[in-house]
Amino acid sequence: MTRFEITILGCGSAMPTTLHNPSSQLVNVNEKLFMIDCGEGTQLQLRKYKTRINKLHSIFISHLHGDHVFGLPGLLATLSLLGRTGDLNIYAHKDMELFLDPFIKHFGNQFPYKINLTPLDPYQHQLIFENNSIRVFSFPLKHRIPTSGFLFEEKDRPRHIKREMIDFYNIPVCKINEIKKGGDYLTDDGKWIKNEILTTPAIPPRTYAYCSDTAYSPEIIPYIQHSDVLYHEATFAEAENLRAQETYHSTARQAAEIARSANVRKLIIGHFSSRYHELGELLDEAQAVFPETELADEGMTINL
Amino acid sequence: MTRFEITILGCGSAMPTTLHNPSSQLVNVNEKLFMIDCGEGTQLQLRKYKTRINKLHSIFISHLHGDHVFGLPGLLATLSLLGRTGDLNIYAHKDMELFLDPFIKHFGNQFPYKINLTPLDPYQHQLIFENNSIRVFSFPLKHRIPTSGFLFEEKDRPRHIKREMIDFYNIPVCKINEIKKGGDYLTDDGKWIKNEILTTPAIPPRTYAYCSDTAYSPEIIPYIQHSDVLYHEATFAEAENLRAQETYHSTARQAAEIARSANVRKLIIGHFSSRYHELGELLDEAQAVFPETELADEGMTINL
Repeated sequence: MTRFEITILGCGSAMPTTLHNPSSQLVNVNEKLFMIDCGEGTQLQLRKYKTRINKLHSIFISHLHGDHVFGLPGLLATLSLLGRTGDLNIYAHKDMELFLDPFIKHFGNQFPYKINLTPLDPYQHQLIFENNSIRVFSFPLKHRIPTSGFLFEEKDRPRHIKREMIDFYNIPVCKINEIKKGGDYLTDDGKWIKNEILTTPAIPPRTYAYCSDTAYSPEIIPYIQHSDVLYHEATFAEAENLRAQETYHSTARQAAEIARSANVRKLIIGHFSSRYHELGELLDEAQAVFPETELADEGMTINL
Repeated sequence: MTRFEITILGCGSAMPTTLHNPSSQLVNVNEKLFMIDCGEGTQLQLRKYKTRINKLHSIFISHLHGDHVFGLPGLLATLSLLGRTGDLNIYAHKDMELFLDPFIKHFGNQFPYKINLTPLDPYQHQLIFENNSIRVFSFPLKHRIPTSGFLFEEKDRPRHIKREMIDFYNIPVCKINEIKKGGDYLTDDGKWIKNEILTTPAIPPRTYAYCSDTAYSPEIIPYIQHSDVLYHEATFAEAENLRAQETYHSTARQAAEIARSANVRKLIIGHFSSRYHELGELLDEAQAVFPETELADEGMTINL
């Protein structure tokens, strides 16, 4: 099965702590690495977890708060030191340009690779990237500044061809891919065999949804429905509900309510406020609403 | 005795490793904290070593390579989150403005404190800061881009008044400071007592010199002569002498030669290339020339 794996590089919030790094994650789809957010110290986390940095394909930035972007300059400079030549695509709010351009002009004028910045429309549900394995969509979150969530969706997977049918009809290897894609088969004696006889249905495509930072917002449910894994911020416990509202963040219970309403398979909560040295309270709160909840942690890997 | 103490926050070089952080140090003079350089992750190091961030007085940036400045955005944002109101002075090459201005415009427009950027002339020996306790000088280093070294020099310290003289002449408390500064004393019966009779000489003012990054450059010796502690970069071992020349860095032996010629009391070497997992070779090389050499390390504190 194609690899589809999330690695948490940082799941803290704006105020740095010795417990958690600021936001960053890697999505490994078929050995291509897609980064979501890039807080300060992300490149050191990549080192720590022995990531193959040369597999980094592109970077998706949810919004332009410092704890989601201040690791970019260092990462981009290091990619240059490592001799990267392939283009690097960054998807972010258009204002990223104001921050990135002076950096590139001063520090990046001799980078051996090119940075392509694709502006995101934070108010639209959009297909922003597509290759042979996946599609990536952005969708609006509800935060103090324009913020995008991301959905990584595996492309339709091939149907399973039945071993015994290959033998029975003596199907040649060159026809197998076509049949896996849903095609019927014409036998040597001119008889059409329906695909349903030859195959069983494909495993449904896997999806991963990233929602950080965001206030409690049921409007996002249509975009993330039935995800296999949902990462949803849970900056606060319910006791800090007012503070969550003021700052356009969510509580752990609210994250779990979104997960339940969206019928996801598993919820990972993160973006923990620096006030929590111990996260059991947040986990209990979320699990009371949605039992399939786990706490994010640096170095954690989730296989979809 | 007034505190005069250096803490190493990072002593690695441009390529990040899990062993060393990029360049940053704190100089604590009389409970005011002066930062030198601010590589990525510096604010996390401040947390790790439980530094009182609110004591941060100003920041001195040697040059505008990423491993000396990429920690600034995160640190400046965190100072804002912590509610700093006092001005923060940053001393750096004038081009720092090109990097700092867009950052402040986008991320710092609601900071509760003001950032004052003082441009350094990288080709001059200059007094750049002075308060009651110290003077800070910058001086030219020899690197690929304009780079300044820094000298922290304690101000002339008071002479020691002899306890027995206070008793013998019955000197009132209000006169003691004047005598410590070198003044003579007029007794009640109109007789002048020379200061040399009343006091012993002050301990000579302490000095700390920071030289990173720099090629081997004896031209710097007049600026750092007789320093109590010299931090000098030693990016490479002597075997990589050519690489050191090409990149305008120093070898450990060259750092030691500078220390010896400058007659400093102690040498700390740092800014280690990521190629060295074990630093014994660098230390041996330096100690062969200048025995009073130590390796820098994260968290290390040097009392002057």
